[in-house]
This record gives sequence, structure tokens and C-alpha cells, in this order.
Amino acid sequence: MVKHMDVPEETMQRMLAYLRELDCMWNGGKEKFSSQSLASALHMNPAQIRKDFSYFGEFGTRGVGYDTKQLITELRAILNLDRTWRLALIGVGNIGSALLRNPELKRQGFQIVLAFDKDPRRIGKKIGPLTVEDVATVRKRIREEKVRLAIIATPVECAQETADNLVRAGIKGLLCFAPCHLSIPEGIRIVSVDIPMALGKLVYHMEV
Amino acid sequence: MVKHMDVPEETMQRMLAYLRELDCMWNGGKEKFSSQSLASALHMNPAQIRKDFSYFGEFGTRGVGYDTKQLITELRAILNLDRTWRLALIGVGNIGSALLRNPELKRQGFQIVLAFDKDPRRIGKKIGPLTVEDVATVRKRIREEKVRLAIIATPVECAQETADNLVRAGIKGLLCFAPCHLSIPEGIRIVSVDIPMALGKLVYHMEV
Repeated sequence: MVKHMDVPEETMQRMLAYLRELDCMWNGGKEKFSSQSLASALHMNPAQIRKDFSYFGEFGTRGVGYDTKQLITELRAILNLDRTWRLALIGVGNIGSALLRNPELKRQGFQIVLAFDKDPRRIGKKIGPLTVEDVATVRKRIREEKVRLAIIATPVECAQETADNLVRAGIKGLLCFAPCHLSIPEGIRIVSVDIPMALGKLVYHMEV
Repeated sequence: MVKHMDVPEETMQRMLAYLRELDCMWNGGKEKFSSQSLASALHMNPAQIRKDFSYFGEFGTRGVGYDTKQLITELRAILNLDRTWRLALIGVGNIGSALLRNPELKRQGFQIVLAFDKDPRRIGKKIGPLTVEDVATVRKRIREEKVRLAIIATPVECAQETADNLVRAGIKGLLCFAPCHLSIPEGIRIVSVDIPMALGKLVYHMEV
């Protein structure tokens, strides 16, 4: 198998989309599929899918297609999703609490094991299996628990300072819900979930 | 001013990112900026920014740069964000409730005016200024309220059926939190916010 570093970023992102669609197919009882059926579900070109798969070797059987469950297993391994990733959550407001209560994350292999806030009314509160801790202890606790991923769900004013702290604590990947651009050192990955921006994408072509 | 239809999708998406960054600059007290400073904040090429802006006419003054507040106003007009968009929310679970309680959405021009669920324990409940309504009435209520945008925050199993209903109700744009690909007729816009997929993007290049 090739090293992931040699595979284009766009291919890796599409592999995630294939996995999501195959999960849906499997839940819908589809045990076999063709690159054509996957392509038409995703409004893509089947040649693109075969090309993406070809980075990782041979999966299907000519004329027979692919085994859904087997390919899900292989894609999860390729995408490092064949394990549980432990995360820290910073900010237990509306979105943060929703994430803590979301069973889907754990089912997909992401488990929040630390939750922090700076509001004294939230610190010490139990949400699901976790107790909210004081954000002042974030660096110590992340090091103790050897957590490498964190979710920033703070107000936008605190997002950059939170990110700086997390980087100093040794975090390697950040998911950020704050609607702003953060400065992050090279080698740290950041992915943004910006809900107002997503809504913005809905309306710029809308007739007004 | 050119029609938005003639502007590449990628330019419109970058315009949203520029607006977000300018909002941050303005909140940080920066009243003027150069394309160079905007570019370096976003790790972009200033020529790209000037090219994107040029679709919409002349904004800045050579050697003086841009007026932050004025450009924010112009970008909001270009992006159809100079008004309030009314939305329907389907699914008042963890994420749905968090959205209803999020003051940031309204500040950005998105107001949830209808909220629906199918769980009898949630129907009739007051969350913020809204009362959760029975999803069975979604088509009637959306037509009555002349709402054109909706957020799908249902479990994944109900997402496609919900989308079909919303399309029949006349919805033109959908923001979907369910981690699956939905089939939508042409001419309806859909934007996906897939939190497990965003986390997936953090880990595929991670050392394991």
C-alpha cells in the first residue's frame, strides 16, 4: 500500500465521501455495488472513483463489482478510521454540549474524553459521562491524557487564544466551530465547521 | 455590477471567506486594510484577491487600500447577506436545539422562524422564542410562512424523506447536518455540514 503522503488531498477527501456513501448503502442493505452505482449516487464520474481507488491497490473484481462491507473495512483502514480517536473539547456552550451528547461521533470513532470551559457555572457540571473541567488546566490535562485532537467550540473572541494553548499542549489536529480564520503553526492540521458560512453558500445565488 | 451567475462558484466562496476575515479585522479595530494584509491573514495570493474583487467593480484606492467597514457593506450586498433570511429547522435534537439557541446566526442574518420535530415529547415545547411544531405540518406551515431555506438536523434515517418534503413545500436551499448524500432536484441548493467527515479530514494524515 502507498503512503498516504503520496496521495493527493482531494483523493483523500473523496475517499471520506465514498466511505460515507458506502455506510449508507450498507445500512440500506446493499451488499455489492459497482463503481457506476457509487458514481451515480454521488453525481460523479466512475473513472474518477476507480482512479482514486487505484492509489491503494486492487479492491473490486472485474464484472462482479465491490463487496460493500469489505470496502468499508478497507476504506476505514486507509483513512485511519479503524480505531477510536480521543478528543478534547474546549467550550461547553450550545454546540459543545450538543457534541458531548451526540452518540454518532463515538459510533464514527471519535470519543470526547476531556471537556473544558472557563465559565465557573459550567465547570464541575456533569454532561453525559464527563465532568467539565477548568480551561486553565487544559495544557496539563491534555498532556496527562495524551490527547492529540481537539474541538474548539468557544466564542469567536477566545478562539485564537484557545488554539495557541492547544498547540502548546501538543495538539496535532483542531476542529474549529468559531467563524474566523486561526493562525496555526505548520504541521498542525485545522478543519473549520463554519455554520454561518455554510448558510452563506446557500444564499449568494438566491433570487432576492 | 455583474450578475452573480457570471461569477465562478469558487470566487463567491472566497468572497464569503473575505467577509468573515474582514468582520474579524473590524472587530479587532482595523479600519483600513490592503489586499496584501488580507492575503497574508488568509495565506493567499493578493493577486487572487484583487482578481476576485474585480468581478464586482472598483473597491479600493491605489496606494491607500480598502476601507474595512465600507467593503464589509459591499461584500454583504454582493453575497445577499444585507438582509435577514428566514429559515425552517427540521429536527430539534442536540444540534437543532443548539442552533435555535445560537445568537450568532441571527447576527449574521439568519433567523429560524419555524421549528419542527416528529417526537411528541418535543412538539409544543418552547425553545427560545419558538414553539416546536409537528413535522406532519411542515409543508403547510412553510408555504404559509413563505420560507425558502431549511436546515435538516434530523437523524440520518429521516434526512432524505425530510428533504423530499421540504422540496415539495417549495424550499430552495437546504443546509443538512445528516452525514449522508441526499438526492435533490436540480435548481435546489444543498450545503452539507458533516461533523464526522470534518473530523475524518483531521486524521487521515495523522501518524498512528
